[in-house]
Amino acid sequence: MELLDVVIVGAGLSGLTTARELLKRNAYLKILILEGKARIGGRTVTLSLPAAKGEDSWDLGGQWVGRTQTHILDLIQELGLEIYPQYTEGKKVYRLGGPEAEIRTYTSSIPPLSLMGLIDMQLLLWKIDKLRKTVSVEIPGSSPNALEYDSMTLHSFIKKNTWTQEVRAAMELSCRSVFGMETSQLSFLYFLMYGAAAGGFLALLEATAGSAQEYKVKGGTQQLSEILADRVGRQNIRLSSAVTAIHQDSGIVEVRTESEAFKCKSVIVTSPPHLASKIHYQPPLPVERESLTQNMPMGHMMKFIVTYPTTFWRENGFSGEIVTQPSSECPFSVTYDATSTSGNPALVGFIAGAQAADWCHRELEDRRDAVIQTLTKFLGPEASNYIHYAEKDWAKEQYSGGCPVNIMVPGMITYFHPSLRRPCGRIHWAGTETATLWCGYLSGAVQSGQRVALEVLGQLSPECLSQEEKEWARKSLAFPVPHRDWKIATGSSSFSAYLLLSTAALGAALLWVHPWFSQVLIERGLSILQKTYMMQ
Amino acid sequence: MELLDVVIVGAGLSGLTTARELLKRNAYLKILILEGKARIGGRTVTLSLPAAKGEDSWDLGGQWVGRTQTHILDLIQELGLEIYPQYTEGKKVYRLGGPEAEIRTYTSSIPPLSLMGLIDMQLLLWKIDKLRKTVSVEIPGSSPNALEYDSMTLHSFIKKNTWTQEVRAAMELSCRSVFGMETSQLSFLYFLMYGAAAGGFLALLEATAGSAQEYKVKGGTQQLSEILADRVGRQNIRLSSAVTAIHQDSGIVEVRTESEAFKCKSVIVTSPPHLASKIHYQPPLPVERESLTQNMPMGHMMKFIVTYPTTFWRENGFSGEIVTQPSSECPFSVTYDATSTSGNPALVGFIAGAQAADWCHRELEDRRDAVIQTLTKFLGPEASNYIHYAEKDWAKEQYSGGCPVNIMVPGMITYFHPSLRRPCGRIHWAGTETATLWCGYLSGAVQSGQRVALEVLGQLSPECLSQEEKEWARKSLAFPVPHRDWKIATGSSSFSAYLLLSTAALGAALLWVHPWFSQVLIERGLSILQKTYMMQ
Repeated sequence: MELLDVVIVGAGLSGLTTARELLKRNAYLKILILEGKARIGGRTVTLSLPAAKGEDSWDLGGQWVGRTQTHILDLIQELGLEIYPQYTEGKKVYRLGGPEAEIRTYTSSIPPLSLMGLIDMQLLLWKIDKLRKTVSVEIPGSSPNALEYDSMTLHSFIKKNTWTQEVRAAMELSCRSVFGMETSQLSFLYFLMYGAAAGGFLALLEATAGSAQEYKVKGGTQQLSEILADRVGRQNIRLSSAVTAIHQDSGIVEVRTESEAFKCKSVIVTSPPHLASKIHYQPPLPVERESLTQNMPMGHMMKFIVTYPTTFWRENGFSGEIVTQPSSECPFSVTYDATSTSGNPALVGFIAGAQAADWCHRELEDRRDAVIQTLTKFLGPEASNYIHYAEKDWAKEQYSGGCPVNIMVPGMITYFHPSLRRPCGRIHWAGTETATLWCGYLSGAVQSGQRVALEVLGQLSPECLSQEEKEWARKSLAFPVPHRDWKIATGSSSFSAYLLLSTAALGAALLWVHPWFSQVLIERGLSILQKTYMMQ
Repeated sequence: MELLDVVIVGAGLSGLTTARELLKRNAYLKILILEGKARIGGRTVTLSLPAAKGEDSWDLGGQWVGRTQTHILDLIQELGLEIYPQYTEGKKVYRLGGPEAEIRTYTSSIPPLSLMGLIDMQLLLWKIDKLRKTVSVEIPGSSPNALEYDSMTLHSFIKKNTWTQEVRAAMELSCRSVFGMETSQLSFLYFLMYGAAAGGFLALLEATAGSAQEYKVKGGTQQLSEILADRVGRQNIRLSSAVTAIHQDSGIVEVRTESEAFKCKSVIVTSPPHLASKIHYQPPLPVERESLTQNMPMGHMMKFIVTYPTTFWRENGFSGEIVTQPSSECPFSVTYDATSTSGNPALVGFIAGAQAADWCHRELEDRRDAVIQTLTKFLGPEASNYIHYAEKDWAKEQYSGGCPVNIMVPGMITYFHPSLRRPCGRIHWAGTETATLWCGYLSGAVQSGQRVALEVLGQLSPECLSQEEKEWARKSLAFPVPHRDWKIATGSSSFSAYLLLSTAALGAALLWVHPWFSQVLIERGLSILQKTYMMQ
């Protein structure tokens, strides 16, 4: 069996970037990419759909890029592709509540809330932004109050820091659209870290300058992977070859699929963490790594494209952007204009989070009819006159298992985050989840591929690295574990003086109404009372 | 290839109970148990250790049973084993804070807190108990306020409902001891459900009548699995045969290990959920099932046994029970007397949750010395004169991956809990995590095995079931999905009248200090103000 230099698990944007970077630096490296799917591109896929002027291409996976996403923009330029702006002219549509709720329109970035809602929203966004700026994306466990923010869900933070139902609902909508998850599922510290990696929470939501939905790639994003695959060499990529086991000893790694085995010096796993955890490792991975990947569930998103004969919504004064509370009648959270550069009119939308769990079991025809009927309500009767409806449920794609990103649940970052990028022997980790800039996005996938390539070159082929890069590779492997302080204050909290009076009264009442409790107190007797008062 | 009736994945207490139940009802069933470990017993293991009177047996895994755990007690009786009470006479030791904190002793169930701490604790326990009684273990998503309680961590609930640091620390200790997890990692609804399945939260913590730590099994709990294995027939059990893939079509299931494949009519997976999710299923499991098992991390516990020449702690007036805040000097959370029925003195203790993550990387000698030194401080200088120190890190046992139980993280129960027991075609699910009585305990493992056996017999061999059992099996498969209400109130919350005044003032201030905000407001103009006031 030939000894390979590097086996890369996953032929998505991250894995292909890794291979390209490795070969750019050292064309003699023997590299093999193993991919579970029958196609390349990971969480990007571009399909040809019937449209106004015949067939045209649309992205059913990751599609947007923004001007601050330098890693992906540089790659787009290098590969000779073009970007064009997301269409945003005209009124946006907003609806909270069920089908009978009022439909509002607006043109700014902030949804049309009540006056109190606007104030509530603004104060919440300031709070989030202030906290976000204190978070280290590299070592989030070292951020101020990391343990406390990692111990609560995003839901708990929002509930505590808002007072209007409309802002809470708006935040649920935003969370669903960004993560394909409910606010109850995310660690608040993870949410802050994700926002920090993007340069701000609003950047995740908007289509304005520097935001996540600013530009699209002409011809679709899967082209990035296709061109990279050509440059890496198709003969070095095996499709329909899901990795089932990775065995390593001190000298060599064996990577197995159901039917084959490959030997190599280093292996780079670029799969989403929850899929990486399905591989059987020998020896087993460290406890922290296992704990981490057991706590990074993937979001659930279904994406749909509806092609139309005309951009009737533009004529009716709409941008095509709809943000709506899902309901039993409306499956989606958000839509945008998706008209192609060739002028083929289309809308794109997302069924996300809990409503994806609700709607994914129905027939495609049911979802399609519900989507079309809701579009009719929002944008005008012309919405019913569509050419084609296409959709993709990413949770049903076995070697993605969801979309867009694996999040972190509460209580993980402060204990296990360092395992996210720390290599386990000869196994290295990449994928957009490991990125520190635009984690969860195409740009993060590229950044992670570049990072891991340097990491592996530092070990296999250090002569290809500059002194500065060697230093960087060395440093990038050092993940300090945040200091854990087990000490706690054993006394009462700061407003104890006030509480002492009220609790003394309450205690007396309890003694009177609850014999068991009084028994416990009497058992401890005066000594406890004495100690307590001495502690105050 | 022979067609088997049932393949059972896992030769722990749950899998062996399942096999025994199936064969009891129909001795002609062809059954095969596949076990990843080189031994049977799952999360129970009984080892022979050097002791005062030569060798004796101790449990390094699950060891306690209680009088309300009828499933395990009936099995113990059926298999001819004996139980004996946990020794609890004498003073218990309690310490919050680091090594320099005061060591207190007590004899009741409630730890020696300050007066305010006692009141705080009692009020919290009442609240938890009141809520616990409202929770349905079978369908927790249908409980009152299920969505809200599932959207917060146990940490958030405790923080909101206590005011003393000592009660918060005591609850962290309890959580660590029961789940091997931190309060930040559990859904509060899951915590309530777990308590409800045990008949109360205090029952999880205590060694009193009806509690989880009431009795021990003479000779150790692994005997249960050994005797069951004899009755099932050792020839029907394959050790070191981890299942890697399960492929099913409408008629048949193929269960694969790394080197073999077996065909059967039904397969029962009794592995912990996070390990069940590492099996490759074809066709893939439903999205909800995948989402659930991605959100059920396993606790982390290390258990140690220290054998001694004498029960010196008893002579010093101690019960052997220590409850302590872990620190950089003290690795453990809790210890108990572990003297055997043959009179061999010993103590048992647990290194759990975050401190297990801290301490599991050190050398065994370091941990041992730290344990012994801490015991000396608490129980007397005689503690340093030990015979043998043995320990087991369950997280490092590949086909357990932790101990004692897979918990549920926030936001899962309300969406995905019905997938916990719902069969996927010919795949059925068991294991203590699926139990409705004493979930997470030995008793729950037995209950789950009995339940799944009836479930499978209902399909393969209904003639072996009574009419009542057939009805039960049919019903036990119906897991209604809780109704999801997408509607929300779009107005402001109840204290809006009060807030309107203060926010109006704040709004004016904001308009003045933040030009962008005023621009947004002006854009919306009077129409928003008008709408807002009409909504009040």
